[in-house]
Amino acid sequence: MSYARQMLDSYQSAPSADVALLAAAIDAISDCTQACIADTDADLSGQNLTEMVRCIRQCLDCADVCAATGAVLSRPAGYDAAVARPLLQACVAICKSCGDECERHARMHEHCRVCAEACRRCEQACRQLADALR
Amino acid sequence: MSYARQMLDSYQSAPSADVALLAAAIDAISDCTQACIADTDADLSGQNLTEMVRCIRQCLDCADVCAATGAVLSRPAGYDAAVARPLLQACVAICKSCGDECERHARMHEHCRVCAEACRRCEQACRQLADALR
Amino acid sequence: MSYARQMLDSYQSAPSADVALLAAAIDAISDCTQACIADTDADLSGQNLTEMVRCIRQCLDCADVCAATGAVLSRPAGYDAAVARPLLQACVAICKSCGDECERHARMHEHCRVCAEACRRCEQACRQLADALR
Amino acid sequence: MSYARQMLDSYQSAPSADVALLAAAIDAISDCTQACIADTDADLSGQNLTEMVRCIRQCLDCADVCAATGAVLSRPAGYDAAVARPLLQACVAICKSCGDECERHARMHEHCRVCAEACRRCEQACRQLADALR
Repeated sequence: MSYARQMLDSYQSAPSADVALLAAAIDAISDCTQACIADTDADLSGQNLTEMVRCIRQCLDCADVCAATGAVLSRPAGYDAAVARPLLQACVAICKSCGDECERHARMHEHCRVCAEACRRCEQACRQLADALR
Repeated sequence: MSYARQMLDSYQSAPSADVALLAAAIDAISDCTQACIADTDADLSGQNLTEMVRCIRQCLDCADVCAATGAVLSRPAGYDAAVARPLLQACVAICKSCGDECERHARMHEHCRVCAEACRRCEQACRQLADALR
Repeated sequence: MSYARQMLDSYQSAPSADVALLAAAIDAISDCTQACIADTDADLSGQNLTEMVRCIRQCLDCADVCAATGAVLSRPAGYDAAVARPLLQACVAICKSCGDECERHARMHEHCRVCAEACRRCEQACRQLADALR
Repeated sequence: MSYARQMLDSYQSAPSADVALLAAAIDAISDCTQACIADTDADLSGQNLTEMVRCIRQCLDCADVCAATGAVLSRPAGYDAAVARPLLQACVAICKSCGDECERHARMHEHCRVCAEACRRCEQACRQLADALR
């Protein structure tokens, strides 16, 4: 069981969302944050830098939006839909476009394939959480 | 002239928004991020902690959302409305509610008065930028 | 295999440290960052807030130092010992004191027990990496 | 007067350091964080990307270390020298090397000149604070 799930199980302040969905989103967001930071570094280490500029930009935005979304979701006791919903929407949008861009390079770059997978899982977990929070 | 404005003036990749509005938003976001982090520490140093719990929570969320919004806005070359708009919406929402909560404590706590002011200015600057980006 | 390990295996730019040690540190740091953010929220939800102030402060510092350390370690291609060593030292120090403080509350608060465990693992993983980087 | 200074003046929990030095460091760190994020974006927008890789890497590390250092310094009530000193040391080191690298491109790129200036001021402010905290 992940630390996120253990933490959520340990106190009774979760929002109306299912704890399993919330923990899954937090875990996927942590993975995606790290993968995007690492992918930026890997992209910068490769050849054909010009082709990787869009991928680097997407990864930078994705890492920052994921970090903020993960932090807000990790503090569920003061849950506020007016903040969490647009934040999840932004997170889904950047994970979608970052995942698309990384996938374009997945054959050439194994690190982009791995990062695309992390983005896809994060996008899906955030969508499911957003649907449950409606 | 702020560093944010100098940086934006130094390269030709700003989004369709007015550079002055963008720089003003980035500067207000930097101030608000720092004020919210500091206000959390000041709140924790005071008496009547129970009354300050909501203020602390709001400041924590506000600092994280502001930091991500400021980072994304500071990289305008890859501007994507599908990400920036909901992110600005989340930022406006948390600055509004954090500003409201800090204002409730402004008479008792000078640090909350200062933080409320930083939140109000950030909320306003982000609203103006969001309107210009429509 | 964690995303951190997959990313490190996918490109040839790791520093002189053992890839397994580096991936373990990055993973432990991600867990600790999230646990500390969540523990702050849980602490604020409890009774006896005055007794938890030190724990909240430590968790806030620990989350921020861990996030930066994790990001720098996730970009190993430009590894610079003059930055990474003191950063790891700061990370070990805050994980140690945060783990100690959380442990003091572990019997009363399950969330502090879980957070203490995340801090201990992070402290240990960062120490091992720091030793290997000498 | 900056928000950082106003916040520090509003409550009596500053560490043994001079409040003016602490506020100056926090302000310089905020500026440097933002300048480094923006410089990354500007570097990615230019020609001769290969020559800018080291600059981009330094800016990414500098932004992350500065953000963490600024957050920890903004919470002075729980000041812990065992954490703050190595963190400031890491911050000085990355500001020094990032400033050096940005300066190398200052003639070609105005954004690097501005970023170098922000790094120099941050390095100096952090050195002065570190000296005062001894």
